[in-house]
Amino acid sequence: MDTQAKQIVFEQLQQLLHDRIIDNETIRNEHGVGFSYHACTPPDYVVYPSSTEEISEIVKICATHQISIIPFGAGTSVEGHILALKGGVCIDLRLMNQMLEINQADMYATIQPGVTRNQLDEALQGSGFFFPIGPGVNATLGGMASTRASGTNAVRYGTMKENVLSLEVVLANGQIIRTGSKAKKSSAGYDLTHLFVGAEGTLGVITELTIKLHSYPQAIYAAVCSFPTVEAAVNTAIQTIQKGIPMAKIELLDAQMMTAINCYSALSYAEVPTLFLEFHGSQTELEEQITQVEAIAHSFDANEFIWEKDEAARIKLWRARTDAAPASVALRKDGQLMSTDVCVPISRLAKCITETQKDIQETDIYAPILGHVGDGNFHLTIVIDPNDPEEFEKAKALNKRLVKRALAMEGTCTGEHGIGIGKLSYMTLEHGKAIHTMWAIKQALDPLNLMNPGKLLPSLD
Amino acid sequence: MDTQAKQIVFEQLQQLLHDRIIDNETIRNEHGVGFSYHACTPPDYVVYPSSTEEISEIVKICATHQISIIPFGAGTSVEGHILALKGGVCIDLRLMNQMLEINQADMYATIQPGVTRNQLDEALQGSGFFFPIGPGVNATLGGMASTRASGTNAVRYGTMKENVLSLEVVLANGQIIRTGSKAKKSSAGYDLTHLFVGAEGTLGVITELTIKLHSYPQAIYAAVCSFPTVEAAVNTAIQTIQKGIPMAKIELLDAQMMTAINCYSALSYAEVPTLFLEFHGSQTELEEQITQVEAIAHSFDANEFIWEKDEAARIKLWRARTDAAPASVALRKDGQLMSTDVCVPISRLAKCITETQKDIQETDIYAPILGHVGDGNFHLTIVIDPNDPEEFEKAKALNKRLVKRALAMEGTCTGEHGIGIGKLSYMTLEHGKAIHTMWAIKQALDPLNLMNPGKLLPSLD
Repeated sequence: MDTQAKQIVFEQLQQLLHDRIIDNETIRNEHGVGFSYHACTPPDYVVYPSSTEEISEIVKICATHQISIIPFGAGTSVEGHILALKGGVCIDLRLMNQMLEINQADMYATIQPGVTRNQLDEALQGSGFFFPIGPGVNATLGGMASTRASGTNAVRYGTMKENVLSLEVVLANGQIIRTGSKAKKSSAGYDLTHLFVGAEGTLGVITELTIKLHSYPQAIYAAVCSFPTVEAAVNTAIQTIQKGIPMAKIELLDAQMMTAINCYSALSYAEVPTLFLEFHGSQTELEEQITQVEAIAHSFDANEFIWEKDEAARIKLWRARTDAAPASVALRKDGQLMSTDVCVPISRLAKCITETQKDIQETDIYAPILGHVGDGNFHLTIVIDPNDPEEFEKAKALNKRLVKRALAMEGTCTGEHGIGIGKLSYMTLEHGKAIHTMWAIKQALDPLNLMNPGKLLPSLD
Repeated sequence: MDTQAKQIVFEQLQQLLHDRIIDNETIRNEHGVGFSYHACTPPDYVVYPSSTEEISEIVKICATHQISIIPFGAGTSVEGHILALKGGVCIDLRLMNQMLEINQADMYATIQPGVTRNQLDEALQGSGFFFPIGPGVNATLGGMASTRASGTNAVRYGTMKENVLSLEVVLANGQIIRTGSKAKKSSAGYDLTHLFVGAEGTLGVITELTIKLHSYPQAIYAAVCSFPTVEAAVNTAIQTIQKGIPMAKIELLDAQMMTAINCYSALSYAEVPTLFLEFHGSQTELEEQITQVEAIAHSFDANEFIWEKDEAARIKLWRARTDAAPASVALRKDGQLMSTDVCVPISRLAKCITETQKDIQETDIYAPILGHVGDGNFHLTIVIDPNDPEEFEKAKALNKRLVKRALAMEGTCTGEHGIGIGKLSYMTLEHGKAIHTMWAIKQALDPLNLMNPGKLLPSLD
């Protein structure tokens, strides 16, 4: 932005926010990259609003001077969602972290967008309810909604898409709207809630969310089970899903990933393809589910299940799983994480993963595999040497082949990470002419292209 | 439309479709009202395309001459969705009724929009899979998607919103796009699928749907249970949901409705507030669920459950429930159905229903109540004398008070029927400024306002 406009905006924002606007380089850089492998691209200013009305005013000031706006939650996104590609104002939502209402009777919570996963968990402790979506990092709920996040429980409870009931949003012109209602279902007009969920901040700033709560299960069992081949593990997952067994979690870790978590968390699991499983339900439901899944697993030559029935052991098990990404990075000194994910129809999953493993071996890149295999979704936690441009190019090419493989199998270029800038170049390949429809919506709601510009939608030039 | 444009369009459509364009008055009138209480408003022509490409051509011809387009499935919508308010071309989709693919491994079916509920059921018979959404009439799946339909099973399996995976759509400019993918989840771009689901044909014509299939339950039990008061019945439903018991169906029929179905289906149920219930799961799951629900019901002084465990008896029970609307109409000679529905957060449901019952009594209108109470959704099947304008006005006022009551309780003006023209006047009350966002999207995708004009979005004048 030009220097004069920049100065005017700074002054106007300072008048509104007093000391809650920062132009210090350290803070700006902290807001310029997130968990992505892209080069840090800091905003001009970082602001810390404390209300929806303030956000509306910030957006109006920016709109008047045609300055970009980037909403910021916890900075945990992996595809470059928060890079300030055109400079502008980063709206850090950490002060908007109030739990506004926990409505047990109607099983929802209304929260501000800066509430984090851990904070939400703590607030729900002892209530008999929980929120199932956990992306494996302590993201904010606003950010999770914006990237349509999911995680290990999605196989049973759905993703953010299924678990956001309504939103409050500040639009690009500063107008404040509410989408949806508190009713469980509605046929009243266009589904704006689902338009903003997954929009990555390119259509507006989410300033409040009403999310669905779920009854805490009567009983929870977790298990670990190792397999002779990755194919056997994946086929176990496929058959389990096809039989309609309501798994709460069914996660694949390949041999390389098992080595990483053993080292990182001082564990001694067999370093072979492994499923991490979790069952939710009443005691009798669990017994039925377990009998069925064990039978399927054994038909694919699985080893015995290692059961974790008490809470502490279960938490330890899932902590090891959650730490998979840092565990992968830790195995390589000064390694840089390049996390990627795709999702395919479940019947294609075994082929997609085995072909990808072959590709990884041939490319000679360190890329352990981790999968929410019940959903057909898996990740490569590629770790590269950031100072080796050749390796970086090899990793990008591997990622590209992965995406093309998934798309050829009628899948998607990302199951839960989102587009940001990392997956921009695959959008047209995946959506074809529908890209024009997406652009038409973008232009209708943000005609000056100020809301998180350069993300989600590829340039059509 | 002007006579000359009309003639040109007729000739061009005839060239494309040969004898599959009709301007005969009987046929036009058959396409002008559906199951709504509004006056018949026929289109100028009815066309019967047999492919997506033909629909694209039809839309292009209409767009060139600025002629309205109304997609038509089975004509079962109740809020006037298919009235040709500006004349134009009705696209009857009955020839596009092919089951394109039943993919058991990935649990989806790809179908044309003219496939009906009954046809889908028959096609899935014996497959081990079923499609749970049933709006109680033999609607088409294209129509069900367009109104975001649901029905009795939604409490467990969700609505059309949760059960459409991807769509093919012809846009207002004739362009053909695909939304979503065959993967179970995706974070790749704006959620266009959910924008077209519930859009009532105002943004484009749905020409293909991929819908989720569900594993047929191992066991199904159905039961009928009567209560001393409607409040007791509703509170049983509320507690059942709040305890997280995964009911497949939990339907309320008030005393008046029980009388109607007894007469219509020659049954002898007690004519008191009654819940119709269905349980899906394994034998042991069902036993657990039943024990819990019976305990809740008895705490509200329910009578004994009448169980229907074999298929024939169960089908008979649900047939009686499905026939509730015609049963209500049958009780009044030459009566006209004015069906309406609202949905509220479940904790407000007992209050909403009892206040509505009181209102019905005071208004002295015949309006049996029927509810998908597990979702907080209920219907009044108002039956009026179509030749009594005063009664018609009283019924409309009753409907208006019902909607305002639901909105005051943070609910929605329609849980599953849609807006059409019948609920237009409540859209701004429910959505406030978000109406402008909906209009911005409409104008972006249909700048000439040719797609089903006058529906879903109220005029902002």
